[in-house]
Amino acid sequence: MIPMSKIRIGVAGYGNLGRGVELAIRQNPDTQLAAVFTRRDPSALKILTEGVPVYSINDLEAHKSELDVLILCGGSATDLPVQGPKYAEILPTVDSFDTHAKVPEYFAAVDAAAKKGGNVSIISVGWDPGMFSIARLYGSCIIPDGKDYTFWGRGVSQGHSDAIRRIEGVADARQYTVPVEAAVESVRNGENPELTTRQKHTRECYVVAKEGADKAKIEEAIKTMPNYFADYDTTVTFISQEELDRDHKGIPHGGFVIRSGKTGVNGETPQLVEYRLKLGSNPEFTSSILVAYARAAYRLSKEGQSGAKTVFDIAPAYLSALSGDEIRKTML
Amino acid sequence: MIPMSKIRIGVAGYGNLGRGVELAIRQNPDTQLAAVFTRRDPSALKILTEGVPVYSINDLEAHKSELDVLILCGGSATDLPVQGPKYAEILPTVDSFDTHAKVPEYFAAVDAAAKKGGNVSIISVGWDPGMFSIARLYGSCIIPDGKDYTFWGRGVSQGHSDAIRRIEGVADARQYTVPVEAAVESVRNGENPELTTRQKHTRECYVVAKEGADKAKIEEAIKTMPNYFADYDTTVTFISQEELDRDHKGIPHGGFVIRSGKTGVNGETPQLVEYRLKLGSNPEFTSSILVAYARAAYRLSKEGQSGAKTVFDIAPAYLSALSGDEIRKTML
Repeated sequence: MIPMSKIRIGVAGYGNLGRGVELAIRQNPDTQLAAVFTRRDPSALKILTEGVPVYSINDLEAHKSELDVLILCGGSATDLPVQGPKYAEILPTVDSFDTHAKVPEYFAAVDAAAKKGGNVSIISVGWDPGMFSIARLYGSCIIPDGKDYTFWGRGVSQGHSDAIRRIEGVADARQYTVPVEAAVESVRNGENPELTTRQKHTRECYVVAKEGADKAKIEEAIKTMPNYFADYDTTVTFISQEELDRDHKGIPHGGFVIRSGKTGVNGETPQLVEYRLKLGSNPEFTSSILVAYARAAYRLSKEGQSGAKTVFDIAPAYLSALSGDEIRKTML
Repeated sequence: MIPMSKIRIGVAGYGNLGRGVELAIRQNPDTQLAAVFTRRDPSALKILTEGVPVYSINDLEAHKSELDVLILCGGSATDLPVQGPKYAEILPTVDSFDTHAKVPEYFAAVDAAAKKGGNVSIISVGWDPGMFSIARLYGSCIIPDGKDYTFWGRGVSQGHSDAIRRIEGVADARQYTVPVEAAVESVRNGENPELTTRQKHTRECYVVAKEGADKAKIEEAIKTMPNYFADYDTTVTFISQEELDRDHKGIPHGGFVIRSGKTGVNGETPQLVEYRLKLGSNPEFTSSILVAYARAAYRLSKEGQSGAKTVFDIAPAYLSALSGDEIRKTML
């Protein structure tokens, strides 16, 4: 049953994620795109959906009555630490904050603002953090005596691609994170191995060198880069810009969360849960999750709740446009 | 952080599921087994845990003050329709009711009783219904334009094994439900096939014939049995009782829930989510889930909520013994 009045969603930021939200809203008939907010000149921004206003993000508060919920599509490094608390006071919000070490302080700041404004704000929504976090939590609760494994890929890491592009002599680059098949199989077989960073993932780099650049030097700079590549088995393949544009233009990703443990009188019974994603587009999938949680933020706010929440705090039913009766009938 | 006072869990029924709950409680240090209730003569029932009282189920109400939550481990056919509403009025409860067609009426009966008693009762907990239901719901919400596939197995179906044992000339039997690998692969490849019952699962039957029984007749009776086998490719293998006891004594199970769909401007981007279980013991895993949801039923009741709930209505955080801060720090 689609409610008579649609949930009016505002989008703050119109990059990959904002565009993904715009597309995801089309697949959720109980929602509508109400407005896009941008830091650019609004008159210069052409969005896909006709008839939807584009406003300056500086005017967001003035347009608050046109929105039921706001999806923050900015980055975790500099955008969200400011926008999260600011807009949580004005409207129910959802964001994909993913700087893990800073979650406690971000949560606290958004929580205070959301409570002050009487809104629910759901932070760190997406697939990791997000659906993978949920898989880890359910896994730990239903198999308490066990171990968690998270593998990412095969997929494009934007951060690692950027790191390569900053090396002297590099024109363009694309980096894939790849789970080590033998490690995944060992985990799936219930062997509960201890795995080093190197044993879990490899890194595949496709690099376009500038004319006359020293390729050996570039390869060395990549493979020894601390944090990003030094702890991994890394392969570097030089290709042309045409090949990169032709063969590597998508943003696929995915991965697995595996919980492996034991039950029984003496822990003799193996039990294994695996949650797996195979994504044609990382930002489009993340956006689709953001829209489902926007529905939850809107509903919880309407019920009179307020404060910051994460995916852990949201009952699954709040994500669905269907009623409790319908969900129990069709999905239980 | 483990709370000072443990959650006191009562178990109603001491079959495979009740024994599994007893074991699962040992893996959850914030819970304790407070009492077992049985229809048998309590003095004749020896349970695994020393020092825990065994009472007649007829005396349950008199022992209510010894319990925080009751896990109903009876069957869906005749036990739970009576016990569910009866005990929901007395205590927070959790059960694994799995007669799908009767969920609406069971939910309504438990809901009325639980509201009257001021308790939260979580029905239909386990892996299907249960964790698989959650996977279907999350999948449908985060990939709205898609299709659901549920495959069961490879695992023992108790109902199908029982059906074979009722055939004349059969001494014992074990039936395995097996997903068709080609179907699973097609779904995993995002092909979104339309699959008939026969295309999704096969049924493997291991049968011990009584001496002098007509094996051809038994095989025919199995393969043509309506609802249970007629719609499937079924194999029947006759073995000795010794072989059955030696090679088929476990109760393994598992399966997959796959959501496959599209995002993008014209639905050009494939997206796939898979939730997979590989269980050494079906009842031990189900029991482990029941204990996690018992924690939730207890907490929600203490918060002043009441009524029937399903897994859809329970925020993941309620399943964990850890605080919100700890969960965000370790699992987000």
